[in-house]
Amino acid sequence: MVEELIVETQGQGLLDITHQVKKIVDISGNDHGLCTVFVTHTSASLTIQENADPSARRDLENWLNRLVPENDALYTHTTEGPDDMPAHIKAILTSTSLSIPIINGKLGLGVWQGLYLWEHRRMGHRRRLLVHVSR
Amino acid sequence: MVEELIVETQGQGLLDITHQVKKIVDISGNDHGLCTVFVTHTSASLTIQENADPSARRDLENWLNRLVPENDALYTHTTEGPDDMPAHIKAILTSTSLSIPIINGKLGLGVWQGLYLWEHRRMGHRRRLLVHVSR
Amino acid sequence: MVEELIVETQGQGLLDITHQVKKIVDISGNDHGLCTVFVTHTSASLTIQENADPSARRDLENWLNRLVPENDALYTHTTEGPDDMPAHIKAILTSTSLSIPIINGKLGLGVWQGLYLWEHRRMGHRRRLLVHVSR
Repeated sequence: MVEELIVETQGQGLLDITHQVKKIVDISGNDHGLCTVFVTHTSASLTIQENADPSARRDLENWLNRLVPENDALYTHTTEGPDDMPAHIKAILTSTSLSIPIINGKLGLGVWQGLYLWEHRRMGHRRRLLVHVSR
Repeated sequence: MVEELIVETQGQGLLDITHQVKKIVDISGNDHGLCTVFVTHTSASLTIQENADPSARRDLENWLNRLVPENDALYTHTTEGPDDMPAHIKAILTSTSLSIPIINGKLGLGVWQGLYLWEHRRMGHRRRLLVHVSR
Repeated sequence: MVEELIVETQGQGLLDITHQVKKIVDISGNDHGLCTVFVTHTSASLTIQENADPSARRDLENWLNRLVPENDALYTHTTEGPDDMPAHIKAILTSTSLSIPIINGKLGLGVWQGLYLWEHRRMGHRRRLLVHVSR
């Protein structure tokens, strides 16, 4: 079973998609299995992170922005804007696919884990994800 | 098939879990298939690395500690200790899930590959992993 | 179904393996499913990146080479050459396994996504990948 998940982002940031993915797992009716989430873009990515304190996610984002700043003299791929090349680099440092076991009919995330779509472009985008569920 | 794997860490470091995961693959009896390992925490992660010379793993750890130091003025998420925010960042730069094909009844790791649980906190923790095996 | 894929690299760089992996998915005849690619080495890795403008891939490589330079005084694992330890670090920052859903008989990559084997050593190597395809 492969479901398409469309997520509208609001610009750079971590967007919680845990609920949407859990719903797809619920519909599958699988008691045990594997859920794989895949993002079909190269300037947005996935990460699993703490879902409790929002300051952790803000720090993640600020840290990554400092590691991969815009307007770095190294970049030659600049025609799509100053935030495009940093977005590609951030995408390779995080995840394009993530697989989470399903246990007792539920997505096997830890208590403090949330699943996030990470938009790396400044502008909001319509992002298309694929969610595969198997036994 | 989803199995729970509990690993007690001894503080920051790479812990070889290859043997435990191989045992689960053996029990499954699958000749060909896929084994997915998932860590249910946001301050520990997974990596596949050289299993021969321990100096490679020490260098990995020292390099990552230098890239993501404690007490960085950027951090605002500091209530859980100086090693907490660096642990979250290290987790997103490495892997929360890893999938390894099973071939001829064996985990398809290369000769020099080991599977490691990477504890990023200074103190030892009881870490819960999920291991999914399918055809 | 697990297939072995041998790729001869020509030294450091991103090598497009999308076509080879698509062929394996075609042969499987699966309409919907999951394709997992795994690299059996610790000094080469996988990434999904923009397949249009080659300047994006050159920038990725130059950026990663600057972040993880050779001859860093921190390295103690130096017996296999100055490019070996950087290769291990680059491998942990990118991906050893990647899972891509199959939708309507096709690998579900986005229009601008290509699947790349990233050789991190200076010399060309014979790299062995495993490709698992399931429903």
